[in-house]
Amino acid sequence: MASTIVFFSVKKTAQTTTRRCLKGLAHSPSVSLLPGGRWSSRGTGVRFMSQGTAAGRSRRGALALSAAAAVTAATAVAGFLANADHFQRAEMATSVPQTAEKKKKKDYEDEGDIVERCKDFMSVPVTDIKVLQERKQEMSTKMEMLIMETQAEFCKALQEVDGGTFKVDRWDRKEGGGGISCVMQDGKVFEKAGVNVSVVFGNLTEEAAKQMRSRGKVLKGKDGKLPFCAMGVSSVIHPKNPHIPTVHFNYRYFEIEEADGTKQWWFGGGTDLTPVYIDKEDAHHFHKTLKEACDQHHPQYYPDFKKWCDRYFFVRHRGETRGIGGIFFDDLDSPNQEQVFKFVKSCARTVVPCYLPIVYKHLSDSFTAEEKDWQQVRRGRYVEFNLVYDRGVKFGLATPGSRIESILMSLPLTARWEYMHEPPKGSREAEMLEVLRNPKEWV
Amino acid sequence: MASTIVFFSVKKTAQTTTRRCLKGLAHSPSVSLLPGGRWSSRGTGVRFMSQGTAAGRSRRGALALSAAAAVTAATAVAGFLANADHFQRAEMATSVPQTAEKKKKKDYEDEGDIVERCKDFMSVPVTDIKVLQERKQEMSTKMEMLIMETQAEFCKALQEVDGGTFKVDRWDRKEGGGGISCVMQDGKVFEKAGVNVSVVFGNLTEEAAKQMRSRGKVLKGKDGKLPFCAMGVSSVIHPKNPHIPTVHFNYRYFEIEEADGTKQWWFGGGTDLTPVYIDKEDAHHFHKTLKEACDQHHPQYYPDFKKWCDRYFFVRHRGETRGIGGIFFDDLDSPNQEQVFKFVKSCARTVVPCYLPIVYKHLSDSFTAEEKDWQQVRRGRYVEFNLVYDRGVKFGLATPGSRIESILMSLPLTARWEYMHEPPKGSREAEMLEVLRNPKEWV
Repeated sequence: MASTIVFFSVKKTAQTTTRRCLKGLAHSPSVSLLPGGRWSSRGTGVRFMSQGTAAGRSRRGALALSAAAAVTAATAVAGFLANADHFQRAEMATSVPQTAEKKKKKDYEDEGDIVERCKDFMSVPVTDIKVLQERKQEMSTKMEMLIMETQAEFCKALQEVDGGTFKVDRWDRKEGGGGISCVMQDGKVFEKAGVNVSVVFGNLTEEAAKQMRSRGKVLKGKDGKLPFCAMGVSSVIHPKNPHIPTVHFNYRYFEIEEADGTKQWWFGGGTDLTPVYIDKEDAHHFHKTLKEACDQHHPQYYPDFKKWCDRYFFVRHRGETRGIGGIFFDDLDSPNQEQVFKFVKSCARTVVPCYLPIVYKHLSDSFTAEEKDWQQVRRGRYVEFNLVYDRGVKFGLATPGSRIESILMSLPLTARWEYMHEPPKGSREAEMLEVLRNPKEWV
Repeated sequence: MASTIVFFSVKKTAQTTTRRCLKGLAHSPSVSLLPGGRWSSRGTGVRFMSQGTAAGRSRRGALALSAAAAVTAATAVAGFLANADHFQRAEMATSVPQTAEKKKKKDYEDEGDIVERCKDFMSVPVTDIKVLQERKQEMSTKMEMLIMETQAEFCKALQEVDGGTFKVDRWDRKEGGGGISCVMQDGKVFEKAGVNVSVVFGNLTEEAAKQMRSRGKVLKGKDGKLPFCAMGVSSVIHPKNPHIPTVHFNYRYFEIEEADGTKQWWFGGGTDLTPVYIDKEDAHHFHKTLKEACDQHHPQYYPDFKKWCDRYFFVRHRGETRGIGGIFFDDLDSPNQEQVFKFVKSCARTVVPCYLPIVYKHLSDSFTAEEKDWQQVRRGRYVEFNLVYDRGVKFGLATPGSRIESILMSLPLTARWEYMHEPPKGSREAEMLEVLRNPKEWV
């Protein structure tokens, strides 16, 4: 476990399509992969979106449904960079989805061929496949492959249950990088489902870099500028049936290089559930699945990150949490890069097993107009949290040139605000409110 | 016109229900009332809500539909005061509504008996009627009567066209003052209609007082505290038919007393229209009515306040105004109190003639599902403005103990967010967007 992190200098290539993520190499091969196989039922035989070739970037035009449509929601990150002077940490999300059914277990990110693995993605990756191959051992490559896999597996699992198809938009960021936005709207099961990847890079001001880290470390840049790279996958799924909860997840990775060549890196992320009605079994399953993933890495992860989640997703003016939580963490950079990556990978791989069993369980639940109404009221609260408190959304909206459609993709298709809505005592709606007002331990 | 403002010291009475608004007396009786009769077709014979008696406050229990329901939206003001350390100017609204049909013209606020005038209100006023009678000549009394009349006339005009009835909630503010909230939800014509009055008083910190004024004047308080009084009427009306626009108005008055006895006072307000489709005739009527009211007081009022309105109601991240504007002003304290009050009175009296003719015109317009959909998308934008930019809402939500239901009453009953929604070129939806992206002159 005595691994150390070795970073090399950034090496810019003449190739304009080259990813400029900081060239880092974490050498801790002695740390064996943690089991996690439980969640790694990876999809096979799914829609072949793109050939993994070095010409990937140039094929963007064909993949994007429209130029204007080429946006993704993980782009609070992209938003960041458009206005580094007012930089704050945006919320990105990372999570590796998997199909619900049992599929072959394979640790792609360590053994598989990059080109082969890319065939399962929703789109060619943001970074040229050739560059990914050349830098296979770098953390930025491992993370980009993880977020692309997460996106693909989750999208495919959702398509399988819905019967619909995701619209895939691929976009470029003028200042460096881009993203892939997958959206399914008004499906059979899902009212609105968005799964987004973004990989962005460029330069930050020192002030922006400081604000990026929640611990606010002071970083020294060369001429005040710090090269950085940020990537993540984020998703919000709003189902139609009020008995199927909304889910959100978000896994992200940052690298910043200081003037003296020191590299700062950290991971952040989380997965949380927002039911309309409390189903204790669902809540227990969701939290237990997350806890098991966390416990493989550190016994304090689940209790700490569960608390952090309840604190973060809090609609202060209502005195309610947004949902029943899950986990949330930020600025994670110890014990070492490889270990944290493995933790993030475990988390990303819990997304499908956390959520899909709940979707299938309630797929045929009947519901009344009143239950639909209560769902719409809760959707209104979701909008309140996202527009008033969410750091990523707030930063993105305040940043000129950011991709609004991506940032606001997390909003539900429909929402409702009733004056003085208060469920009758003893109702299932009141039971839900009670839990939101007093977060519970579910495991 | 050489009138001056004379303020007397605050005189607290032993009576606990006494209004503690700064005792000010503006003596410019030489300034004759401006015509404005055009708008002053005041309601008669409407529902008798309450006897105007000194015991008004004690009858609150009977009037409020529930204790918790006793909230109003003009309460960004109330919110202010709950946390003076983080004080910012909240948005309050004032506007005197009138019934659409011709009624007897009467300058109640100058000639009528207080008790008689109160009979037409939606509730007993916040301040005891006895106190209002004793301080008939004070600006705070004149303004409280004006906002109560505005609320009553507008509510009655809306009830008349809808056939429904407003729910009237009366609430007390622990620290001083209270409000009256009138809400009609899911009516025949109106999806959600809210008309609110609030009259609040107490003490501000110097920092809070500074932030209250948009010009940020430094005010000196006794031991750092400044007695203040704030009141206003505010309203947002969301109709069901997408051919009937949403309207918002807000008229307010502030008084602050410095340590040396100097009194600061100012008025603010505005009325603006948010159509779903452009109807040039409506836009012209709305702006022309406002311009005529403004022109009676100053030739620069309409052009200046029209620009201010377009600047204020701007959804920056969309690059769109919220609607087609109207007027917006703040911090207005010249040429003198009486003159500004008369201007505000003229504005308040334009609310019904600005809006009701448009409602009646489109009352029977048929509409398609697609038009309803576009309305819902525009409602989403309305929510975005109110939650992300509106100063009153932002301040209110950030203030512990503020009345959330009142602050968020401005939100529509229903709203919609479609990913990458872009109306086809040449459509009426695209025409609307074009106007929002490039505000027009309508008069």
